[in-house]
Amino acid sequence: MTDALLQVVGSGLEVVDLGRQLRTGMPQSPNHPQFWHTLPRRHGDMVRSDGSSAANDMISTGTHVGTHIDALAHVSYQGSMYGGVDAVASGVGGKYDELGVHTIEPMIRRGVLLDVAGHLGVEHCEGGYEITVDDLEATAKRQGVVVEAGDVVLIRSGWGSKFAEGAPYVGGPSGVPGVGEDGAVWLAEHGVHAAGADTIAFERLAPGGGHALLPAHRVLLVEHGIYIIEALDLEGLAQAGWSEFTLMLVPLNIYGATGSPVRPLAVRPKGAA
Amino acid sequence: MTDALLQVVGSGLEVVDLGRQLRTGMPQSPNHPQFWHTLPRRHGDMVRSDGSSAANDMISTGTHVGTHIDALAHVSYQGSMYGGVDAVASGVGGKYDELGVHTIEPMIRRGVLLDVAGHLGVEHCEGGYEITVDDLEATAKRQGVVVEAGDVVLIRSGWGSKFAEGAPYVGGPSGVPGVGEDGAVWLAEHGVHAAGADTIAFERLAPGGGHALLPAHRVLLVEHGIYIIEALDLEGLAQAGWSEFTLMLVPLNIYGATGSPVRPLAVRPKGAA
Amino acid sequence: MTDALLQVVGSGLEVVDLGRQLRTGMPQSPNHPQFWHTLPRRHGDMVRSDGSSAANDMISTGTHVGTHIDALAHVSYQGSMYGGVDAVASGVGGKYDELGVHTIEPMIRRGVLLDVAGHLGVEHCEGGYEITVDDLEATAKRQGVVVEAGDVVLIRSGWGSKFAEGAPYVGGPSGVPGVGEDGAVWLAEHGVHAAGADTIAFERLAPGGGHALLPAHRVLLVEHGIYIIEALDLEGLAQAGWSEFTLMLVPLNIYGATGSPVRPLAVRPKGAA
Amino acid sequence: MTDALLQVVGSGLEVVDLGRQLRTGMPQSPNHPQFWHTLPRRHGDMVRSDGSSAANDMISTGTHVGTHIDALAHVSYQGSMYGGVDAVASGVGGKYDELGVHTIEPMIRRGVLLDVAGHLGVEHCEGGYEITVDDLEATAKRQGVVVEAGDVVLIRSGWGSKFAEGAPYVGGPSGVPGVGEDGAVWLAEHGVHAAGADTIAFERLAPGGGHALLPAHRVLLVEHGIYIIEALDLEGLAQAGWSEFTLMLVPLNIYGATGSPVRPLAVRPKGAA
Repeated sequence: MTDALLQVVGSGLEVVDLGRQLRTGMPQSPNHPQFWHTLPRRHGDMVRSDGSSAANDMISTGTHVGTHIDALAHVSYQGSMYGGVDAVASGVGGKYDELGVHTIEPMIRRGVLLDVAGHLGVEHCEGGYEITVDDLEATAKRQGVVVEAGDVVLIRSGWGSKFAEGAPYVGGPSGVPGVGEDGAVWLAEHGVHAAGADTIAFERLAPGGGHALLPAHRVLLVEHGIYIIEALDLEGLAQAGWSEFTLMLVPLNIYGATGSPVRPLAVRPKGAA
Repeated sequence: MTDALLQVVGSGLEVVDLGRQLRTGMPQSPNHPQFWHTLPRRHGDMVRSDGSSAANDMISTGTHVGTHIDALAHVSYQGSMYGGVDAVASGVGGKYDELGVHTIEPMIRRGVLLDVAGHLGVEHCEGGYEITVDDLEATAKRQGVVVEAGDVVLIRSGWGSKFAEGAPYVGGPSGVPGVGEDGAVWLAEHGVHAAGADTIAFERLAPGGGHALLPAHRVLLVEHGIYIIEALDLEGLAQAGWSEFTLMLVPLNIYGATGSPVRPLAVRPKGAA
Repeated sequence: MTDALLQVVGSGLEVVDLGRQLRTGMPQSPNHPQFWHTLPRRHGDMVRSDGSSAANDMISTGTHVGTHIDALAHVSYQGSMYGGVDAVASGVGGKYDELGVHTIEPMIRRGVLLDVAGHLGVEHCEGGYEITVDDLEATAKRQGVVVEAGDVVLIRSGWGSKFAEGAPYVGGPSGVPGVGEDGAVWLAEHGVHAAGADTIAFERLAPGGGHALLPAHRVLLVEHGIYIIEALDLEGLAQAGWSEFTLMLVPLNIYGATGSPVRPLAVRPKGAA
Repeated sequence: MTDALLQVVGSGLEVVDLGRQLRTGMPQSPNHPQFWHTLPRRHGDMVRSDGSSAANDMISTGTHVGTHIDALAHVSYQGSMYGGVDAVASGVGGKYDELGVHTIEPMIRRGVLLDVAGHLGVEHCEGGYEITVDDLEATAKRQGVVVEAGDVVLIRSGWGSKFAEGAPYVGGPSGVPGVGEDGAVWLAEHGVHAAGADTIAFERLAPGGGHALLPAHRVLLVEHGIYIIEALDLEGLAQAGWSEFTLMLVPLNIYGATGSPVRPLAVRPKGAA
């Protein structure tokens, strides 16, 4: 007896890939170990007696590179993580047992795109621009979508169009657009499960300011236990014009880590309006 | 208008996680760079002026570690990969442009479990045991499931119960159970999209033989373009007694790599029989 | 005006290399990240307009692999390192500022070989054999050499002849020969600057005991500030029959690390007796 | 009988360290995997039954980072390396068997400093300045030193004073001073064993030109088998005013690698003039 999910799947799905391709040299935060991929063994290096050969890979990387999710263990405030967990004590042993990325359940749930750049009619918000609560609400209204508890909300500033340029995407001198503390509070008040953006740090970075102050991280990760997804590719989703969809996001189950690269998908039945 | 997929998702899903937790020290093939996770920065190492701190990770690893998928670029036979792609020429530049893991589309499709150990009434098949075509057919028949073109077929030998033991799971001296060339041909004849197992190399390894000969890899990856998933955790799926389900598997989009760690999920609507 | 050192150098030197070659797959302690070397770029991958190309490397490794030196920061006892430095506090920031390997001065000083296996007339001491103070004194006497303050003393058990065998060198089930607490105290009483051996952990390991208890490390590193050199290749030195020589050892200047791979040299003027 | 070398050593040595400290974040060429050091285990993470604990390290790095030496396998020209070795064929297997860094003998030989910046009376030569043969000869003459066959010649442009600044040292937009093809030919004609500089690529880099053309690498490595040492710290040597000295340089013995981090030392008897 084919179940209801298999029936929908069997009728055909449209999938929009929200993850950046992982490539050596892609833009990333200088705070995290660089992503490097190399082939220790290539075809032809060692051929087995039956004529076969196997090539393989070595990767060295941080977890907050490419499109990735922040575990609650990533940020602490005045010595505590979400739920009052002692931040220093929790890291003894070299693993965050309590709030590591292994504690994030795979997500198959409603996703909502808030295309702020689309609403504002700009290719991208300017570096350092703070996306306000008014922006979020006007965008939702214009799209005719309502943010609900449990949603994964993805905020498009358009800045992701700079990813291929490299350093400008990181946005040191220019700053990066994004929500600030107020926007984060708004998301928390709506009870979202996770929030993402098409930028390297999710929230607004002041021009020249780097990652010195990250109030939205504090509000979401530390005060409300809301996961943050960064460096999303939201260009295709905006082009598709999807406001709501099923969001599938499966972090690697790395015991005790503070984050994981992810490749989230936005999914709809074929022909859904 | 909520689409049909969102409606099913909204009604509640049951999810069985088929991925192994990634931990330093877990069993893996000695042919691949060891998985190591470490925290370059822990909470307390550097506290920002606002009282916040961020911890982060460094990972060094092969891609064929933990639960993972083999890209078609992983194996060649007599100088060629799937579709006759020249194996040596394709690796020039240090990336497999044509058949790298970036070319595997995320999978949301029918999954089928063939619980061979369950059918045979053993905790696990013995090391070096070759799972035969008869075993596969009798298992499918017993479960009342039919393998169809496009399916992802997961073969449970029960060997996965040794994962926590470490070295015995790798199975050097004992060998490892699995299909051989005949079983691989049977899977290919059924037109499966991908095939997986709860062992380190998917296919049967002879006692003391290591990875010297891998005929099922040749049949599936090189001759038929069928992906292979290794080191799955199929214990929970067997306990749940699911024969068919929606399989979600999203490889990391690593440009040019020969494989990727994955965390596949088996999913069903709550209460589906 | 050529100085006295240049004159000796100019007259010709004999050099015995005491370092193991670093190769992927060499035996090492499972407590430390595996040594892996790979070529991200090979010749032919990318050729410049002038016809030149450059190949390069990526290495992932622990520092206590191959022939290496232990910094004083490597070991603590009851919360303190050498000189009473607080071990936990010192590591905050992810670097051992005070006793890291960057604090070891390059060594150009008298080296002494104590060839215990040679004295005992065995190819190698047995696994788990504790080299006693009597062994050390009888060996020195037989060789006609006196250990002096400031020396680097190298103790040959002969176990290094197993290096090429791999796992047996690590010596899990068999144990490994070496000095125990008494031998370490003897070395400390002689005021040596550093002590080394041809084994993976310098000191005796009990059969099946692994690295559970390392009293010689405590005596040397924590109580006396004496550096430890491990996994030396002392076979050539024994064959050369040198009892004293100039020992040159230059650790990598890795800020805050607990150890460094090294390639120590024993050097003599040509024709010295 | 204490040998002549031990006598000189015993009388006291002065040592000038020519190696840069290896630190995460130090300036390096973007062509090579970044140097990262982290502590997987810190004191307090795991305490043994006897009250001891051991901290350890993980390092991920290229080999052409910090002060380092180029093996002859690093560069090829029109398909060949030094001695006509086929560059592509030699890399099959993922190791340069013939000209890898393991083939560089440890160096204990005459070193000569040519302090070009000192001669020119500048803090540092300008970015993109080509150090000419006239500069080299005038510098040697002014210092009263003669370059001889077998020497290791170290050329000081003064650019090393920018190392602590980070990006300016790499010199992308500004270019970097150094010898060009003519200077390399001059070194080769003098039969030097190795040549080094206080810059990231040894030779002159044109402003904005990056590493597109490296004629001195071709002349030295490919045509004459002369090793190149990069990113030396020559400030202390210039301050000491040493023109000749004993140079000790011991590469890590990494089988098949194209380079190695090194920590070269300039050494003199105490009180030598």
